[in-house]
Amino acid sequence: MTILFYDLVGHDTQRPFSPHCWKTKMALAHKGLDATKVPTRFLEVPKVEGGVSKTVPVIRDGDRVVADSFAIALYLDETYPERPTLFAGEGGKATARFIERWSQLTIHPYLTTVLLADLHGMQDEANRAYFRQSREQRLGKRLEEVVAGRDAGLAGFRASLEPLRSMLGYQPFIGGTSPLFADYIVFGALQWARVASPYRLLEAGDSVAQWFERCLDLHGGTGRQVAAAA
Amino acid sequence: MTILFYDLVGHDTQRPFSPHCWKTKMALAHKGLDATKVPTRFLEVPKVEGGVSKTVPVIRDGDRVVADSFAIALYLDETYPERPTLFAGEGGKATARFIERWSQLTIHPYLTTVLLADLHGMQDEANRAYFRQSREQRLGKRLEEVVAGRDAGLAGFRASLEPLRSMLGYQPFIGGTSPLFADYIVFGALQWARVASPYRLLEAGDSVAQWFERCLDLHGGTGRQVAAAA
Repeated sequence: MTILFYDLVGHDTQRPFSPHCWKTKMALAHKGLDATKVPTRFLEVPKVEGGVSKTVPVIRDGDRVVADSFAIALYLDETYPERPTLFAGEGGKATARFIERWSQLTIHPYLTTVLLADLHGMQDEANRAYFRQSREQRLGKRLEEVVAGRDAGLAGFRASLEPLRSMLGYQPFIGGTSPLFADYIVFGALQWARVASPYRLLEAGDSVAQWFERCLDLHGGTGRQVAAAA
Repeated sequence: MTILFYDLVGHDTQRPFSPHCWKTKMALAHKGLDATKVPTRFLEVPKVEGGVSKTVPVIRDGDRVVADSFAIALYLDETYPERPTLFAGEGGKATARFIERWSQLTIHPYLTTVLLADLHGMQDEANRAYFRQSREQRLGKRLEEVVAGRDAGLAGFRASLEPLRSMLGYQPFIGGTSPLFADYIVFGALQWARVASPYRLLEAGDSVAQWFERCLDLHGGTGRQVAAAA
């Protein structure tokens, strides 16, 4: 029985965009586990598996339901230890949490400003209204006002990636010579941007961009199955 | 035969201050390895072990000489696998590099501005002249000008620790339930500040300050063997 994977989509079910769902997609591919995708729109999330979580990803693996991309990665590694590891030991698990917090607090806030209008445009009508209302309430601004700040923030965003960029002078992946879940955490954020918006976040010569391309190539090009937004 | 540990000091050999040497001091304590400290002033560094490195820490363990705090930690874990691990697996080794780069690029630049004048004051006469000249050349400013910016940078510095602070909502150490070398990387930076300057970096209620206190307690209070600067 394959794993059910509740993946966030907009009106086009073939263009999943959620950064957290992309982390799970990559984690499943890394483990070589088949999954049946259940395309899920924002307004359907509260009904997923009887309302187990306010967010996706959620997976069902037989009798087990697991929510949250990090918890899912831990679950997959524990449940399928004979398959390639996502953490490579207890130290890797612990320090991946720091990287997750770094990605969430350094990369996500700026990407939110970049992507909001594009993400709004990707939803169907009902979800578009929900998306605008919920995000404008959270941010205290019109979506269009938030997005207007993206050019002004770009240089600062690129600079904020310096720890990642500098690390890439030592090794090709956050996980070392090969990728681990820590890579997929940051990949998920940049893939969110790639799928949602043509806005050019990184310069082509940037080692972060080159690392991202390497991640897109992984597991038979899992990340490239969705074309970049044009 | 105990390990020789070349540790950076100023005119008071009992107040080692280097963040990188503190990483090694904590790594040795974590492994339960005895070491004989060789107090080393800036101008003596080029002569350490025949000029093996431009920086300390350097250790000699029998016939082996190892420079660089990260390389030393890797060496100690590989050479003494029966003692408590500093990385807890290959994943922990790889992701510790990211944390090292984050600490170096996020914490160190600001602490340099805070500590320069105090560090200058800690050196003996010959080293004081060297310190001023080399640092002013590197920074393109008088030490006093650099330090004058510290109050203006404090709020930004505290905010830059948010990934660490947020991570501490999940687990008590970067290493998880107990510390790993990744903790000592960041500890070293804050200990540098604690030993060199009375400047108040963190508010007492900050979970980062509480984590730092926990680190000071480790291994019989290794970090507390040097009193905070007054």
